[in-house]
Amino acid sequence: MPSNPTPSNPAPSTTTPSTVVDLDLTVSSIELTRVICDIESVSGNETGLADAIERALLPFEHLEIIRDGDTIVARTNLGRGKRVVIAGHIDTVPLNNNLPTRFETDDGVEYLWGRGTVDMKAGVAVQLKLAAELTAPAVDVTWMWYDHEEVSADLNGLGRLAANRPDLFIGDFAILGEPSNSQVEGGCNGNLRVELRTFGLRAHSARSWVGDNAIHKAAPILERLAAYEPRQVEVEGLVYREGLSAVGISGGVAGNIIPDEAMVHVNYRFAPSRSGAEAVAHIRELFPEYDMTVVDFAEGARPGLDAPLAQGFMAAVGGEARPKYGWTDVARFSAMGIPAVNYGPGNPLKAHADDERVAVDQITECERGLRTWLSASAD
Amino acid sequence: MPSNPTPSNPAPSTTTPSTVVDLDLTVSSIELTRVICDIESVSGNETGLADAIERALLPFEHLEIIRDGDTIVARTNLGRGKRVVIAGHIDTVPLNNNLPTRFETDDGVEYLWGRGTVDMKAGVAVQLKLAAELTAPAVDVTWMWYDHEEVSADLNGLGRLAANRPDLFIGDFAILGEPSNSQVEGGCNGNLRVELRTFGLRAHSARSWVGDNAIHKAAPILERLAAYEPRQVEVEGLVYREGLSAVGISGGVAGNIIPDEAMVHVNYRFAPSRSGAEAVAHIRELFPEYDMTVVDFAEGARPGLDAPLAQGFMAAVGGEARPKYGWTDVARFSAMGIPAVNYGPGNPLKAHADDERVAVDQITECERGLRTWLSASAD
Repeated sequence: MPSNPTPSNPAPSTTTPSTVVDLDLTVSSIELTRVICDIESVSGNETGLADAIERALLPFEHLEIIRDGDTIVARTNLGRGKRVVIAGHIDTVPLNNNLPTRFETDDGVEYLWGRGTVDMKAGVAVQLKLAAELTAPAVDVTWMWYDHEEVSADLNGLGRLAANRPDLFIGDFAILGEPSNSQVEGGCNGNLRVELRTFGLRAHSARSWVGDNAIHKAAPILERLAAYEPRQVEVEGLVYREGLSAVGISGGVAGNIIPDEAMVHVNYRFAPSRSGAEAVAHIRELFPEYDMTVVDFAEGARPGLDAPLAQGFMAAVGGEARPKYGWTDVARFSAMGIPAVNYGPGNPLKAHADDERVAVDQITECERGLRTWLSASAD
Repeated sequence: MPSNPTPSNPAPSTTTPSTVVDLDLTVSSIELTRVICDIESVSGNETGLADAIERALLPFEHLEIIRDGDTIVARTNLGRGKRVVIAGHIDTVPLNNNLPTRFETDDGVEYLWGRGTVDMKAGVAVQLKLAAELTAPAVDVTWMWYDHEEVSADLNGLGRLAANRPDLFIGDFAILGEPSNSQVEGGCNGNLRVELRTFGLRAHSARSWVGDNAIHKAAPILERLAAYEPRQVEVEGLVYREGLSAVGISGGVAGNIIPDEAMVHVNYRFAPSRSGAEAVAHIRELFPEYDMTVVDFAEGARPGLDAPLAQGFMAAVGGEARPKYGWTDVARFSAMGIPAVNYGPGNPLKAHADDERVAVDQITECERGLRTWLSASAD
């Protein structure tokens, strides 16, 4: 899942491997997760891992390999009636003393601990293993492993690939390996951020009545946010929970000045039944008397679980589909008309956490689910 | 009047005169104002002006001259039954393209325009002229011209002098030449600044219900501030108007994080009938559920107009005494048991303004008032 989609997360480059690491794609997906997590690939430093992936896949004759920057595409061309895109990002958020990985057991559960284990190299490892092994899947597959997902949206490798090679985005269904506890999470909420501003008149605070306090004028904004009851909206069988939150507030000139401006930064996560334009209108309706600037905006994605391929996928992997709350790149596929779901190992609550860790059973479970479906799915 | 009493106003030093300017104290107080305003003395750069003042006063045999840093004290030792302290600061806030001074006429009123004309070199000019001329005032006078008033309180020249030479602070009454439209402004409000903090639980804003939004919790603080009705309190015949204002607000981690902390910076200007401790208790009572830190604190000063010398002063200068809202160094005299008032030319609303300017008639009026009283006042 992307971190803050503003360009506030510069990509530090700490190491650049001078030689390409040899990836053995025949090891278990758990072991492969460990290996690729230990190839540090904080956003901006993906080249080493991309090189290793490209080199490991080139020998497989059932795969056509395409490279765009540090994004690697591998696709089968078997002439199947349907094509599925299966994608995962290879970058991580910055380290915080959480590499190299290690195995640990907690309350009887075995985990692989370390940066990237959840978001989302376990998913990538499963995909790599299956890309190599499944020489004749029941559908054609376009595998995509892309760079720069955890930083500003304009750097996103999937977005760049869509601009450079739109022909690669032909498909009937897409699966994104974002962490979802190896259960299907459909679609995603939309994401809107606005700045609400109040204005007043500056004055010396010793004569406050001469001025007009812009911070005091923000009281109704916070009241309405605190009292707001977010909706729970059913979309194609999944219930999306919305959220409306102040994520920032600022104002003030000096300790003796009545401030003439204040700003509340508001984040609205909205169900995919609502368009971005409707989300903006909703916020404007909630705060009609305030100056409002949209600073970030991403459409949600409907779950698309009524697509025939999605139905087959659900049947193969089992379990109940759930809604995805966080915004993910499924929305890019959705916007291109390709129904898309999230399906990957790891608890999303542990994504970006310093104690990021994945239950190894989830890696095996995800591999089993994808393998079952790709081996059996009928057109 | 002091600007923000926190050390946020570093004193830039732009010029250091290499030779001492000769001040002619026989010119009109308007002309003398012009001359000393054009000797730039932004806080930290007072040496040139202090040198000029010291050199101009040394020839006068009725004055004992004492220097402490860039503070100059001149006092008569005539054995009068009463002693009065008359003080003014010689520094200004930073320039903003408002030197050199110029005369201008607006709506029939003649002004001297430029940095320091109001705060408070017109008052200093009147004091310097009278210090030189009145060789036998009716009361002994201790004149004080001090440095570093417009910056952090711990740099204040009057405070330093009180620590180094407490013996100079013997007096029955004090007059501070702060701008007051050449009318007597008694005492001053106290000044308290506190930070109120709210705490919550950080979470990804895509799952806002997992967290606890600290900014939303600040809503009642802003509501109470917006609804607060400041008191108007009569103290010794003057009505002090209080003020309770947010002067700053902050909170937020990133655009996709539910914030776990927010802070509202609150400034309370309280009537001098209330002690600082009572002011703190009042704010604590208004916001009992919030974490509170006192960040700045200055007692007010009662007007002291019932002192016999104050009564005589009022009679001599004429007009109605009014309350001083802004905190000034009268509070230092008040704390030392010396009743003190503000009396100086210039509209305090123009202090620190880029278009700072003093009506020249007010300079003449202030000189007349002080001269009348010092010439006639009886013990």
